[in-house]
Amino acid sequence: MGAFHEGHLSLMRTAKRENECVVVSLFVNPTQFGPKEDFTRYPRNLERDAEMASQAGVDVLFAPPVSEMYPRVAASIHVPEVTERWEGAVRPGHFDGVATIVCKLFNIVRPSVAYFGYKDLQQCLVIKRMVEDLNLPVELSFQETTREGDGLAMSSRNAYLSPEDREKAPEIHTQLEASCRSIRDGKPVDEALVDARRQLESSGFSVDYLELVSLHTMEPLTHYTEGSAIIVAARLGKTRLIDNVRL
Amino acid sequence: MGAFHEGHLSLMRTAKRENECVVVSLFVNPTQFGPKEDFTRYPRNLERDAEMASQAGVDVLFAPPVSEMYPRVAASIHVPEVTERWEGAVRPGHFDGVATIVCKLFNIVRPSVAYFGYKDLQQCLVIKRMVEDLNLPVELSFQETTREGDGLAMSSRNAYLSPEDREKAPEIHTQLEASCRSIRDGKPVDEALVDARRQLESSGFSVDYLELVSLHTMEPLTHYTEGSAIIVAARLGKTRLIDNVRL
Repeated sequence: MGAFHEGHLSLMRTAKRENECVVVSLFVNPTQFGPKEDFTRYPRNLERDAEMASQAGVDVLFAPPVSEMYPRVAASIHVPEVTERWEGAVRPGHFDGVATIVCKLFNIVRPSVAYFGYKDLQQCLVIKRMVEDLNLPVELSFQETTREGDGLAMSSRNAYLSPEDREKAPEIHTQLEASCRSIRDGKPVDEALVDARRQLESSGFSVDYLELVSLHTMEPLTHYTEGSAIIVAARLGKTRLIDNVRL
Repeated sequence: MGAFHEGHLSLMRTAKRENECVVVSLFVNPTQFGPKEDFTRYPRNLERDAEMASQAGVDVLFAPPVSEMYPRVAASIHVPEVTERWEGAVRPGHFDGVATIVCKLFNIVRPSVAYFGYKDLQQCLVIKRMVEDLNLPVELSFQETTREGDGLAMSSRNAYLSPEDREKAPEIHTQLEASCRSIRDGKPVDEALVDARRQLESSGFSVDYLELVSLHTMEPLTHYTEGSAIIVAARLGKTRLIDNVRL
């Protein structure tokens, strides 16, 4: 989407290390924003992003205008099941917009491997499901979330945080790690999640969800199994942060 | 879909003349049938179809089982606008099923050129729109409808006609040609269409629609322009026939 930060650059550098030619798309995709979301105020700085991508070893920056990607109402892709809950429930149509633009970009660029960050875990599963279901000829490579020194997951939305909220924000990661450890140590899942939620709320967060989910279906789990993750969405002021840890 | 007839074979021979390697898909696609449609009674004869395709010069027959193409509820593609009327209105979800399976087949086979018959005109426009909107890397080649000696458009559903209805069926093409000529000669479009519809109904057809439409949008036209077609759907007994002529 743009507003590149160290998380994006890390994906680019990994892609360059593993491939000869790296193409990065820079496109603030209107179809994945809801009518009340921040499409117009989403940060855009083509020159800065181009310079950063170039420094990271990117060969081609693909930054088309909206009118070229969407000259009219376009055919769209709906991914079932993994889109139903969490971000999909809060942001109706969001993942259809994501799936559609990613499919278009794949068809235009035709990469052998495509890199995405686990920060947007549900988005990773939506893209994986689309690729499998539509038989798209691309390999997916999901990379670990890049974090600030204090644990806050990198996100272009972190820039919206007030200085006070920025100080509180790493608590999300602290609580994810804590509940992850307690569950692994045998604490019942519901207790671990309630504890973490209480801690976040007492630190001033409004928690939208904090759940243990299956990495295959995004369905909530009541017991720890292989292939699960704790996912969280919580608001500080007007800024909504999401994060996750895989168990 | 299978139940190959001369219309399909003609597409295969054209494809072989114009390309080195021809792949034909043989797949009765469940997702494009409505719950009350003829998915289970759709004619299937793998050996006969394989022999016919081979005789037509086809190099690869791709005939996957349903369980391989749809191991679970799959991501689906919705094409807007051109799907709204006519077959799209009568058969809700039909064109989503068509678009999705065609996209899957394109991604599996990765053809440089894909051949379709104009017999299913709206289907051609749906596929064209999907390819453009999703930037699918394939060239489309639409071929003229193959007809019986008496003008009836070839269709696997012709086999469902009783001998009496089979005799009446070419009247569809006769009336399409007649209204095409009258419109070109300056007769008002609505008059020409009403005349053709009356003729068909007096011959025992139930006419679902008979309209002049734009070849870009499938919207009905009241006046003749470049890039238009007359489309018709009419029933004889339980058998629904569709046909069209481009002006």
